[in-house]
Amino acid sequence: MKAKLTMLTWCLAAAGIAQQKVPFRNNIPVAPQGLAGHKLPKLPVEYDTAEGQRIRVVAVTREVEYPWSLVFLPDGSMLLTERAGRLRIIRKGELDPKPIAGAPASFNAGESGLPGAVHGYMDIALHPRFAENGLLYLTYNKAIDEKRRAVALVRAHWDGHALTDVRDIFVLPEGGTSRIAFGRDGMLYMSTTGNNPQDPNTLGGKVLRLRDDGTVPPDNPFAGQAWHRPEVYTLGHRSALALAMHPGTGEMWENENGPNGGDEINILKPGLNYGWPIVSYGRTYPGPWQSDRPRHEGFEPPIVYWVPSIAVSGMAFYTGDKLPKWKGDVFVGSLRTGEIPGTGHLERILFNERMEELRRESLLTDLRQRIRDVRQGPDGLLYLLTDEKEGAVLRIEPAQ
Amino acid sequence: MKAKLTMLTWCLAAAGIAQQKVPFRNNIPVAPQGLAGHKLPKLPVEYDTAEGQRIRVVAVTREVEYPWSLVFLPDGSMLLTERAGRLRIIRKGELDPKPIAGAPASFNAGESGLPGAVHGYMDIALHPRFAENGLLYLTYNKAIDEKRRAVALVRAHWDGHALTDVRDIFVLPEGGTSRIAFGRDGMLYMSTTGNNPQDPNTLGGKVLRLRDDGTVPPDNPFAGQAWHRPEVYTLGHRSALALAMHPGTGEMWENENGPNGGDEINILKPGLNYGWPIVSYGRTYPGPWQSDRPRHEGFEPPIVYWVPSIAVSGMAFYTGDKLPKWKGDVFVGSLRTGEIPGTGHLERILFNERMEELRRESLLTDLRQRIRDVRQGPDGLLYLLTDEKEGAVLRIEPAQ
Repeated sequence: MKAKLTMLTWCLAAAGIAQQKVPFRNNIPVAPQGLAGHKLPKLPVEYDTAEGQRIRVVAVTREVEYPWSLVFLPDGSMLLTERAGRLRIIRKGELDPKPIAGAPASFNAGESGLPGAVHGYMDIALHPRFAENGLLYLTYNKAIDEKRRAVALVRAHWDGHALTDVRDIFVLPEGGTSRIAFGRDGMLYMSTTGNNPQDPNTLGGKVLRLRDDGTVPPDNPFAGQAWHRPEVYTLGHRSALALAMHPGTGEMWENENGPNGGDEINILKPGLNYGWPIVSYGRTYPGPWQSDRPRHEGFEPPIVYWVPSIAVSGMAFYTGDKLPKWKGDVFVGSLRTGEIPGTGHLERILFNERMEELRRESLLTDLRQRIRDVRQGPDGLLYLLTDEKEGAVLRIEPAQ
Repeated sequence: MKAKLTMLTWCLAAAGIAQQKVPFRNNIPVAPQGLAGHKLPKLPVEYDTAEGQRIRVVAVTREVEYPWSLVFLPDGSMLLTERAGRLRIIRKGELDPKPIAGAPASFNAGESGLPGAVHGYMDIALHPRFAENGLLYLTYNKAIDEKRRAVALVRAHWDGHALTDVRDIFVLPEGGTSRIAFGRDGMLYMSTTGNNPQDPNTLGGKVLRLRDDGTVPPDNPFAGQAWHRPEVYTLGHRSALALAMHPGTGEMWENENGPNGGDEINILKPGLNYGWPIVSYGRTYPGPWQSDRPRHEGFEPPIVYWVPSIAVSGMAFYTGDKLPKWKGDVFVGSLRTGEIPGTGHLERILFNERMEELRRESLLTDLRQRIRDVRQGPDGLLYLLTDEKEGAVLRIEPAQ
């Protein structure tokens, strides 16, 4: 999986001042490693934050490896995925040392955050009537044959200890990254990556809308249209790494990674085109702008964007009472900032009542962890997953 | 000078989830104070940085108040301005406790960074032939009468101890903020703030180009055109806080503050329009976008922009050998990030040879100081000014 190394170093005399030599690999500047590999310090730690909310960061567990996604069961237990293809459970604050039995076999390769990485297990979601039917959903990459991978959406029954009735209910034609979330309409939204995000007749770079059994609902925006895949809900996405339903409006929010600049939060509306790769706020990795227009008629603009990129992943609307200064705010994980490893953190975004941004705060910056996911717990606290080999589930509590 | 307080608090039930109440004053969200007032810690401190350059931050002096700008004299001494209207000198690393005599009287009001603030002394620049003629230039705000202020450009002679032959050689019709820098053409470039940045027949929101005696060079882009002020070099600027000549190309670079998002670095070209307030990447402070287009034909786009804003101030091209991993990079001060006081830092931007950005790094974030200016010293090290009441001149050295 290792990309061929072409140390195309430049002696940048063109501009008339000597510059450091920047190594490139496959036309992408090699990421500098001076801040990478920062270990999570001893916890808890406390921080002051902008709104006067002093917080404490606690480790729920430090015994997970590249955790990817998290859900809370009705009894307060947490089910979480590990990228290597394991489903884990934390009961009463204790991580069960054994992975959940019955989970499907996945394909995992490369290093998280590097080109060529394939994530084994990714997102997890509970059926809206999970308390009655015990159904849960996972997205994962599986090997089709020696060379080909595919993202699959699996549905399974949770019996309290293991997965049963495990069945792939939707399989994409290629590997990639995928998030899932149920909407207020009871439908399952599923983000995809891949080729041709502008082509409505393919499944890459889209958000799909599916029934809870993986079939296509007849009221999808392109259902019945020739040369349109009926599963498509929205198109023109680059690399979606969060889907979260706004608890007030019921709209589905999505975030996605731009290239070198141009990460976005979008509000998804049926049949709309979010522009990638035609419109973008970012640059390509070698330097030139991705497009000459960050916005254009016919393409839905983001409601929030980042320049430089912070490599967004995960998103939660905070509706709890335990951190009252943050009530109504949006939290987004950051895997790194400005293309520099070792600069992940948590972003907080404050909106007005029309969903227009008022300000933005970077939190937990000195922990320098890749934050893969952020969720609100039933206890009204915030939970984070660190996308690290020595990964952790962190909890943010009020410190006063 | 205090703005009338209208605590227009919103109960944001519109979106269906309760949100915290955000206080507004004059249609601007009141800045949260939870991180404000951070004291500079004991120095030196050391940091790892992305390119593997370990650095040490040293205090040259901690005895200056709201320092604004800095120049190095041929003998290695530093002359610096303080916002309250004082010119100070540091000789052989020692701050002279007495301000320089002969400097003009200025008008200073409000708190730096808050609406209504008027800076007494601002920028300082040496004549390109300073070694021969001893001429230096300052921008400052002066009182015209009890209500009116004006930005003046003063030229003076430095005799080694005091200013003599002090003369305002150019006076703007209103108060504001101004930076100055000499170009390779020997001309003095002067940024302005104020009303009507799009009107070429006024002096607000422009960069002006003047001779070293304050008169207008006949080859200015609008010289001789009706309804155009002949001093204007570029127009459509919001709040320029740096001018710096690229040491290789000789082009004048400028940075300016966007509103809520949309800080910019621009390369100035004669007669071009940089778009404010018609095109911008940012939002207004109450939330709506400043414009429906971040770029448009007829307006010169920035080469770098920030969303969220970092309140840029000061800019230096690093050409030294002491910090070799940073050679050729651009450094920009940040007064705050994301509209949050207490989040100032230093930004480093790495370009390719075509002046296209490759990546960006935030430095010295945990010092939480407002960085007003950044300069390279004759010793090949970087010098910073902290825009704080207990202000400091900081030096960045290699730590290994």
